[in-house]
Amino acid sequence: MTTISGYEYETVTTSPVTPEELQLLKASVLFGPADEAALRQAGEVLANQIEDVLDVWYGFIGSHHHLRAQFSGPDGEPVSRYLDAVRGRFGQWIWDTCERPWDEQWLAYQNEIGLRHTPYKKNRTDRVESTTHVPLRYLIALIYPITATVRPFLEKSGRTADEVDAMQESWRKAVILQVALWTRPYAPGPW
Amino acid sequence: MTTISGYEYETVTTSPVTPEELQLLKASVLFGPADEAALRQAGEVLANQIEDVLDVWYGFIGSHHHLRAQFSGPDGEPVSRYLDAVRGRFGQWIWDTCERPWDEQWLAYQNEIGLRHTPYKKNRTDRVESTTHVPLRYLIALIYPITATVRPFLEKSGRTADEVDAMQESWRKAVILQVALWTRPYAPGPW
Repeated sequence: MTTISGYEYETVTTSPVTPEELQLLKASVLFGPADEAALRQAGEVLANQIEDVLDVWYGFIGSHHHLRAQFSGPDGEPVSRYLDAVRGRFGQWIWDTCERPWDEQWLAYQNEIGLRHTPYKKNRTDRVESTTHVPLRYLIALIYPITATVRPFLEKSGRTADEVDAMQESWRKAVILQVALWTRPYAPGPW
Repeated sequence: MTTISGYEYETVTTSPVTPEELQLLKASVLFGPADEAALRQAGEVLANQIEDVLDVWYGFIGSHHHLRAQFSGPDGEPVSRYLDAVRGRFGQWIWDTCERPWDEQWLAYQNEIGLRHTPYKKNRTDRVESTTHVPLRYLIALIYPITATVRPFLEKSGRTADEVDAMQESWRKAVILQVALWTRPYAPGPW
């Protein structure tokens, strides 16, 4: 396993979100045991396509000024060191989503990911100067591209249409649930 | 048109969100002219099934304590007057989503809907005593059930699979975009 810059999965261990709260979130997105199995399958299918998935996502972000801006420095130019560092973690996140148990350590790292989108921690991990935070609205809006774009890669597995559907839906639920977790530091009170 | 309790679409006219910000949100969820057309079609298909859709949604909310609680009074029992009033507006919201132009008045009413989920305005419209706010995480999580459950109703239209897919995706984008708008009063600063 190569070292991923700023990937501190084992370092953070405390989550402000309880396992019980996670259970209620799972119920809210209808995430059940069948999704867990389908998500593992999705992980297997995506494992050797992660760079291609990231190419699509980075292409999308790069082609929209308001999204690219979240990686840009005070001169308005994207900071390539920042883009590269996040890319490594973004790829690992795909794997983590599909293959890690959603236990307390996973929950703690979800909190860390959330913080890294807000003024509490954005830019800090990679020691860059960029926007203070990812606007909450874009964090939520990106649920769409981050879920819809995965389908062609799942289809490449040659699995049946039903299996692809199951993988796609489990991925969709997993992303929505994680975005819900990541929004906590934006509004801890009413979260 | 029957009067819908607390439905004040024409009353609110000022939106803190600009049309330019809406454009960027549309781009973020890949919402384009083809989606606009598909969403109109979805509106036609759903128009005479709205009560059935609401039955499914209310069944889902009703079967989960943490969701039902948002409609419950201090005694922990659901307030049926509250459920009924919201139901009328919820049904109208389906139609508004599909058939209204997304102009400044629409934006202003999105803001109103957002406020009605938060301590600023929850319970007020219907003069009920219930939870102070809908937790932000559930607002986001409900993207899943509110989008996935619509498919069978779209399929009943007898349209081609491609048309159903297009309607479904346009609905998905529309819901994600609106949830993004509704989160503004939860965190106006970093929104």
